[in-house]
Amino acid sequence: MLTLSESRKLIEQEISHNPLLQVRPPNRLYEPLKYILELGGKRLRPSMVLLACNLFAENYIQALPAALAIEVFHNFTLIHDDIMDRSDLRRGNPTVHKKWDGNVAILAGDAMAILSYQLLAQTQSTRYSEILHSFNKLAIEVCEGQQFDMDFENLQEVPLPDYLRMIELKTSVLIAGSLKIGAIIGDASPNDADRLYEFGRNIGLAFQIQDDYLDVFGDPKHFQKVLGGDIAANKKTFLTIQALEKAQGKDATELKQWLSLNPANPEEKIRRVTEILRDLGIDQLARAAQEAYYEQAFEAFNELNLPSERKSVLKDFAVDLLKRNH
Amino acid sequence: MLTLSESRKLIEQEISHNPLLQVRPPNRLYEPLKYILELGGKRLRPSMVLLACNLFAENYIQALPAALAIEVFHNFTLIHDDIMDRSDLRRGNPTVHKKWDGNVAILAGDAMAILSYQLLAQTQSTRYSEILHSFNKLAIEVCEGQQFDMDFENLQEVPLPDYLRMIELKTSVLIAGSLKIGAIIGDASPNDADRLYEFGRNIGLAFQIQDDYLDVFGDPKHFQKVLGGDIAANKKTFLTIQALEKAQGKDATELKQWLSLNPANPEEKIRRVTEILRDLGIDQLARAAQEAYYEQAFEAFNELNLPSERKSVLKDFAVDLLKRNH
Repeated sequence: MLTLSESRKLIEQEISHNPLLQVRPPNRLYEPLKYILELGGKRLRPSMVLLACNLFAENYIQALPAALAIEVFHNFTLIHDDIMDRSDLRRGNPTVHKKWDGNVAILAGDAMAILSYQLLAQTQSTRYSEILHSFNKLAIEVCEGQQFDMDFENLQEVPLPDYLRMIELKTSVLIAGSLKIGAIIGDASPNDADRLYEFGRNIGLAFQIQDDYLDVFGDPKHFQKVLGGDIAANKKTFLTIQALEKAQGKDATELKQWLSLNPANPEEKIRRVTEILRDLGIDQLARAAQEAYYEQAFEAFNELNLPSERKSVLKDFAVDLLKRNH
Repeated sequence: MLTLSESRKLIEQEISHNPLLQVRPPNRLYEPLKYILELGGKRLRPSMVLLACNLFAENYIQALPAALAIEVFHNFTLIHDDIMDRSDLRRGNPTVHKKWDGNVAILAGDAMAILSYQLLAQTQSTRYSEILHSFNKLAIEVCEGQQFDMDFENLQEVPLPDYLRMIELKTSVLIAGSLKIGAIIGDASPNDADRLYEFGRNIGLAFQIQDDYLDVFGDPKHFQKVLGGDIAANKKTFLTIQALEKAQGKDATELKQWLSLNPANPEEKIRRVTEILRDLGIDQLARAAQEAYYEQAFEAFNELNLPSERKSVLKDFAVDLLKRNH
């Protein structure tokens, strides 16, 4: 059985050596690709492709092109998201549009989207049309998620179901689709492939809600960013959306006021909003929601028609993912 | 046999009715797609897919999804090119990034790139992997062409072979690939599909050189833009590159000087550069180069293993294309 660390190593090797991922003329088109891929990251998504394949087949190498396709696609969306969000830094380094310029970032992203299809097309499988269908579906859904996210910035209030659908599209479908594509390459039954998709979808939702939670209630010793960044930026998150729905009277008024202000020094704002969130029990609510998605994820996972020892790597991976407190 | 006007009508109908091309939530993602597709255009590229298919098979309807894929892909590149070129107008209407904003234009373009793959995937063919390969190849090459074009803006001099390679990538491979994909869907022999690719590649080169020619020497009665726009903008074209290579002495000095200036009123510049181009015989050179590509195109076309009456629609189309004087 392939382990997570072996999987990461394999992916790093491929990133270093796959001819489609090397710099070639026109260099300014391919240098940003190399640059962002080598900024690191945990290679979680491509690893999910490999590990899911290995659940059903000894030969996980056959899933390597699809794993790279997922990683390149993911990084394409990061480059374009960074332009749209006007982010200067990505993993502590200048974003592509900062290091080069906006035009380079647009076009390099476009090329990476196409390269992801070129990589995917290297997959040898009698079920290629299913694989392509899953890839197309997750790809368009990620774009839809990003558009909903941008739309929400201009709304006063976002209903919780809309928020959950947005994070599902923006985050979960890529994890879910990675697992499903890996499963199909490993020739899983359609039912098992769908169970893994459900597993990934729920893990993704749990993960994003955890992200929202940790931004406010994370352990400052382990949290790499300043706590309360989402509050300072008036970002709609699971916590603020729930709080605005639950709060009444004075709390509601104060919360709405804070979340429409942009004080130069946001410390007081973060402190007060965090207090209100805690008073309203939003921290507990978030933990409970995360737990519920987590349980649904493992319900789907447990239905997989496989011996439990085969499932342990992927299971441990998911447990680890959601154990982090930073 | 399908005619060009029937082909255009079919494509317009599909653009109006294909569910993948209709506005749906998130609306701001799909409205720009609808908008740019309905700005019109001659639907030359998707028509080439249909006409090429119909050379080899009665059932040209089977090529409709691929034809739409080509049209959507082409329009995706237009949206992103317009951002990169800072163009305000496209076919007399505001460009997507002007009508909405840059973020909408980036993301709508991304979605269209993915949609083009979704449309292509609807093609029913036992030779789908060949079709996908051709599509992937033209798609990445179009990006490479755009990058070379941007790179050339910052160069003092561009060698003619580099310029020709750039226009091949940026313009010709889409025409060539459209024809080849149509041919494969019609189940053409690999050799016939390659002949059509060569035909399209050379037609594309002839077309682009004609474009460069008409910008300076077009008939002002028919030319919709002001003559000399490329000269005013110091754009590298077949004409200016050839002129800078041929010019000597006083002409060379004057030409270089004009092509480094940006006068507020460019009339004198356009008049003098046009005169120098004519003195150097660049107009004749461009005509000869266009003619040579044209002949190579028809050499490839004539090798197609088909009765000449089948070939007449596509042939007439190409002849028409290169007869325009505006």
